Amino acid sequence: MTGALRRLSINRASIRQWTVRELVDACAARGVGGVGLWRDDVEDVDPAAVGARVRDAGLAVTSLCRGGFVTDPDPGERRRRHDDNRRALDEAAALGTDVLVLVAGGMDGNGTDLPGARVRVADAVAALVPDALARGVRLAVEPLHPMFCSDRCVISTLDQALDLVADCPVEAAGVVVDAYHVWWDPGLDAAIRRAGPRIAAFQVCDWVTPLPAGVLTGRGVMGDGAIDLRAMRRAVEFAGWTGPIEVEIFNDGWRERPGAELLDLMIERHLAHVIDPESPTQFDDERSEAAWTASTT
Amino acid sequence: MTGALRRLSINRASIRQWTVRELVDACAARGVGGVGLWRDDVEDVDPAAVGARVRDAGLAVTSLCRGGFVTDPDPGERRRRHDDNRRALDEAAALGTDVLVLVAGGMDGNGTDLPGARVRVADAVAALVPDALARGVRLAVEPLHPMFCSDRCVISTLDQALDLVADCPVEAAGVVVDAYHVWWDPGLDAAIRRAGPRIAAFQVCDWVTPLPAGVLTGRGVMGDGAIDLRAMRRAVEFAGWTGPIEVEIFNDGWRERPGAELLDLMIERHLAHVIDPESPTQFDDERSEAAWTASTT
Repeated sequence: MTGALRRLSINRASIRQWTVRELVDACAARGVGGVGLWRDDVEDVDPAAVGARVRDAGLAVTSLCRGGFVTDPDPGERRRRHDDNRRALDEAAALGTDVLVLVAGGMDGNGTDLPGARVRVADAVAALVPDALARGVRLAVEPLHPMFCSDRCVISTLDQALDLVADCPVEAAGVVVDAYHVWWDPGLDAAIRRAGPRIAAFQVCDWVTPLPAGVLTGRGVMGDGAIDLRAMRRAVEFAGWTGPIEVEIFNDGWRERPGAELLDLMIERHLAHVIDPESPTQFDDERSEAAWTASTT
Repeated sequence: MTGALRRLSINRASIRQWTVRELVDACAARGVGGVGLWRDDVEDVDPAAVGARVRDAGLAVTSLCRGGFVTDPDPGERRRRHDDNRRALDEAAALGTDVLVLVAGGMDGNGTDLPGARVRVADAVAALVPDALARGVRLAVEPLHPMFCSDRCVISTLDQALDLVADCPVEAAGVVVDAYHVWWDPGLDAAIRRAGPRIAAFQVCDWVTPLPAGVLTGRGVMGDGAIDLRAMRRAVEFAGWTGPIEVEIFNDGWRERPGAELLDLMIERHLAHVIDPESPTQFDDERSEAAWTASTT
């Protein structure tokens, strides 16, 4: 099991009731290999110190959430967002992660001009490429489920995210494959194959209904919903992905439960519904370990 | 304005507090050309009599909602659904509409086998083709927004619906373009052009947030949300559509308001946000009127 857990990463949003230190210590104690952090986790502290603490515990910071929100029609506001996204790249570099997740932004204050908003996202990502290259941090464009198109993210499919980064150097810009956002897409398998080395992060949880009001915090744990996570994990691996599998679950109900219970549940479900039970040590293979080691050092 | 209102149709689900007769009389009084009905509207009455009453008032029945729900893994249940869908075709023919809207069904009781569910839908639609041809009623496959993929409809994009009906005779099977379900799709314009004569119905409302719990009954009236309905209407017309524009708004809050107020609001918003204000009588052109007349007689 060692390889399978080393490759597991827990996004901080999945256990908000814990401090970063509590999350890191609990993950280290169980052999979990990484954590995904958010910008507010390093808002009032030195990101380099946080990154060092995570690495001292034997873990990697697998991603920083998040930059983006670049759809505002006002050029001044977009300029402010660009500057803030550059700071996010700085924070990612200081933390020691090479993945900055970008969420495009929605259409708020933008009328009905969806094509225009999408063009602004492409422009904004391209403008960040030199900074990303300089810092060795990759812009990871995350398509969000189409139900978020108006208020959160105008990039709605994996193919669309791939089109967006197609002209950027592969080391500067990639895409996030988050199972919750893309599972329904009839073109998903082909898009994942197409993505290949553009995959910068792979996140999992499950799709459960009914959705709550606002639809943001109704994610389920792997195995409770409609997504064939094992098939999707195989697809991203077939496309070349050997990096972490990050569990990101937004669920208001989870706030009431002990963090350790949630962490143990995510580990159990990762083993039962994401990796292959018939070959649980698959991730000990040389290539995966080499890639993982490279990403954590 | 006459042409513009003649081409407007009000789906019964938009004003549930009215009887069919109240809806038809109010639409007739305002010059609205059609109504879309549901199967429960003709459950305990003779559909032919309902259809005759609508036509006597000078209106058309622009669609019957709905058949479908053919994803159950159990063959016996799918057989029952097939028989029920044949009855729905009978009801549509008796009502005098040539459009039966089909909603595929979700994955309930179906684990995580999304590809399997989608194959079952294709098989079920193909099996209904001879009955559709015999009755002169078109199967109108409706892609639903991806947020309904697990619990209501595994057909999530217009392209997917077009793939599904591609091998069926065009007079037997088409697609529904419902703005609410497809507006976010980055491939929408191309899919609408591809659809061409496969377009069997065009429905409008608007996308507003936050979505309510369950996400079914949070639709907005045209002009209140994120969808560029005028652009979409132009796109379906460029693809050849000259038929009705049907307003279908599921909104729990609307149940509390007087039906006449809602009808007047839908008319006002149709004129202001769907048709072109600079050429409001565009629908009086010969081709549109001929097509409309053909569809109502």
